Amino acid sequence: MDLRVVFLGTAGAVPTVDRGTSAALLVRGGERLLFDCGEGTQRQLMRSAGLSRIDKIFFSHLHGDHYLGLPGLMKTLGLQGRTEPLELYGPRGLEELMTVAQRVFGRHQYPVVLHEAKPGIVLETDGYRMEAWPTDHGPPSLAWCLHESKRPGEFHPERAQALGLDPGPAFRRLQMGEPVVLESGVVIEPEQVMDEPRPGRKLVFTGDTRPTDHVAQFARGATVLVHDSTFASSELERALETRHSTSAEAAEVAVRAGVDLLVLTHVSSRHSRRELVSEARAVFRHAFLPDDLDELIVPYPDKGTPYFVRPAEGSCGCPEHAPGPTEADDSEGGG
Amino acid sequence: MDLRVVFLGTAGAVPTVDRGTSAALLVRGGERLLFDCGEGTQRQLMRSAGLSRIDKIFFSHLHGDHYLGLPGLMKTLGLQGRTEPLELYGPRGLEELMTVAQRVFGRHQYPVVLHEAKPGIVLETDGYRMEAWPTDHGPPSLAWCLHESKRPGEFHPERAQALGLDPGPAFRRLQMGEPVVLESGVVIEPEQVMDEPRPGRKLVFTGDTRPTDHVAQFARGATVLVHDSTFASSELERALETRHSTSAEAAEVAVRAGVDLLVLTHVSSRHSRRELVSEARAVFRHAFLPDDLDELIVPYPDKGTPYFVRPAEGSCGCPEHAPGPTEADDSEGGG
Repeated sequence: MDLRVVFLGTAGAVPTVDRGTSAALLVRGGERLLFDCGEGTQRQLMRSAGLSRIDKIFFSHLHGDHYLGLPGLMKTLGLQGRTEPLELYGPRGLEELMTVAQRVFGRHQYPVVLHEAKPGIVLETDGYRMEAWPTDHGPPSLAWCLHESKRPGEFHPERAQALGLDPGPAFRRLQMGEPVVLESGVVIEPEQVMDEPRPGRKLVFTGDTRPTDHVAQFARGATVLVHDSTFASSELERALETRHSTSAEAAEVAVRAGVDLLVLTHVSSRHSRRELVSEARAVFRHAFLPDDLDELIVPYPDKGTPYFVRPAEGSCGCPEHAPGPTEADDSEGGG
Repeated sequence: MDLRVVFLGTAGAVPTVDRGTSAALLVRGGERLLFDCGEGTQRQLMRSAGLSRIDKIFFSHLHGDHYLGLPGLMKTLGLQGRTEPLELYGPRGLEELMTVAQRVFGRHQYPVVLHEAKPGIVLETDGYRMEAWPTDHGPPSLAWCLHESKRPGEFHPERAQALGLDPGPAFRRLQMGEPVVLESGVVIEPEQVMDEPRPGRKLVFTGDTRPTDHVAQFARGATVLVHDSTFASSELERALETRHSTSAEAAEVAVRAGVDLLVLTHVSSRHSRRELVSEARAVFRHAFLPDDLDELIVPYPDKGTPYFVRPAEGSCGCPEHAPGPTEADDSEGGG
C-alpha cells in the first residue's frame, strides 16, 4: 500500500514567505490523516492532495500555529456540502478550546467528533494502530505514531505445489495465515510456504518538544521520525526556554531511536537550511529538511528507503521550480 | 503623497490555489491600513509590503473569511517584540468576538484597542478622514471610505514675485493658506498666488454586500471603489440569498456613484475572471479584477489615473510570472 507524507507547513511559530505554519498530511492508500493544521493549511491541501477525504486530524498541542487553519478548513468543508464526521484528536484541552472558541470554529452541518487522547493506542484499524505519547513542550502535548501491522511474509507458490497443493482457494487460505488440510490428512502450516511476517512502516510526528528519552523510546525503529527542529545549536538556550529542540538534538533522538530517516521541521527563520541540516547530519546522516509541499514517499522497509519528491503540480514550469533531485538525494552535509 | 493598494486576498469565502481570503492593504506615505484580515494575511504581507507599521485594521464584518488571519498576525507581531498599540475598527460585535474568543486571539504585550464604529467619520487625521457606512450583508457590516483632505492649489511663485514678495518665509505662509502683509501695508491673499484647492483621493472598500443606494451615495465620485463581486449574473439568485453582489451589480453601483475605477473582489471560484470582468465592463468600462498581490497605484486625480502593477518581488523570474502589462492596461471586455 502506498504511503506518503506531504509537508504542508514547516515553519516555526512565525511563518515566512516560503514556509507556512505546522501541518503535514499522511496519505496511506485511500486514507488521509492530517497532523496539525496551522494557518493556511486548507490552501496547502488545495495545492497538493486536495481537501477530499480529510477525516481525521491529530493535534500535537493547542498553540495557534498548530490549529489556526482549522476554523477556515472546517468552514470550507461545510461549504463543500460535507456530511461525513470530522474526527479531531488532540491532547487534554481540545474540548475546552472547541467550546470556549465555538464562535470562531463555527457550527457545521456535519458532525465534529472530539477525542482527547491519553497516552497509548488511540485508534486501531486492520492496517495500523495510532499511538499518542506525551512530549515536553509546556502545555499538554503529544507525539503521534502510526505503526502499521506486520504484513504476511512472502508466499512461495513453488513450495506449496511441491507439498501437493494446487493454486486456488488453498493458496489463499495459506496467504491469509490459515492452515490447509490435504486429502491425505496432512496439515500444511502457512510457515511451510511463507517467509516470516514482514514489518510494517512506523512514522512518528513529535510536534513541538524538547528532545526526551520518552520520545526516543516511542520512536524506536521508526521508518520516519518527524521531529521539532526549531533552532540551531547557537540558540540552544532559547530552545531550552521555549521547550523546543535544536536540529542536533533532534538528530540525537534519531540516533538513540535507531530510525531510518529523520525529517526536521518547525524551523525558525533565524537559521539557514544549510545550518540546520549540517548540524543534524553531523550527528545523524539521514536527516532532511523539506520545503513546504515536498512529498516523502515511504516504501515498505523491505522494498526500499524513503525519498523526497517535489511535486510538479502547481509548478509554473520555470527551471527554478521544476521537479528535480531534492535534498534527500544529495550528499550535502557532514556525518 | 504616494498611495497604493495591495490586494492581499481576493477570493470569496473559500480560498483557491490562486486567491486567498479577504484582505487589502492601503499604503499612504508611511502609513499602512489593512482592510479585513482573512486567513493567510500575514504571509501575504510578508510577500509584499512587510509586517511593519501595521497599526490599524478595518473590518467590514466579522465572518471568518474576513478575520481568521488576525490571531496569527497578532501573534507574529507580538513575537517580533511589538509594543505599539494595534487599533482594530469594525462593526458592532467586534468587542464581543474578541472577548468570547480571547483564547484564540491570545494575550499580547502590546495594547489592542477596539473601536466599534458607528456610521460617519470614525477617524480624522490632518491628511484624510476615514468614514464607515452600513452595508447590506446580514450581520452588522460596514463599508470603509478613506477620503483625503483637499490639497492646496498650485502655487505660482512668479505671481508672488510680481506682487513684490521674495522667496522665503512669505512664500511658505502663502502656501500654507495664510495671508502676508507687505511693508506697504498691502495684504496678499493666498488666492492671489495659488490655484483653487485640489481634490484629494477617495477610496471605498465595501466588504461583502448587496449593491445598495447607500453604498452608491457613500462612494460618490470615488477615485477607487473596491466592491463585492462574488458572482456572475448566472448566480444572481445565489447572490440575493447570500447577500453578495454580482460583478454587473457592482458595476451598476460604480456607474451611479460616478467613480473613476472599479475593483472587483471577493470572487467565487465558480466563475472565470473573464466572465466576471466582461459582465462588469458591459456596464462600467473601468472595471478590473486583480490577482492576489497585484498593486494599484493611485495618483492624485489631477496627476493621472490609477493603474495596476504586478510586483517583481517574490517572482521566480520565469516568463509566466514576469511583471508586465496587467489587466488594467488591456482593452479586453465590453462596454
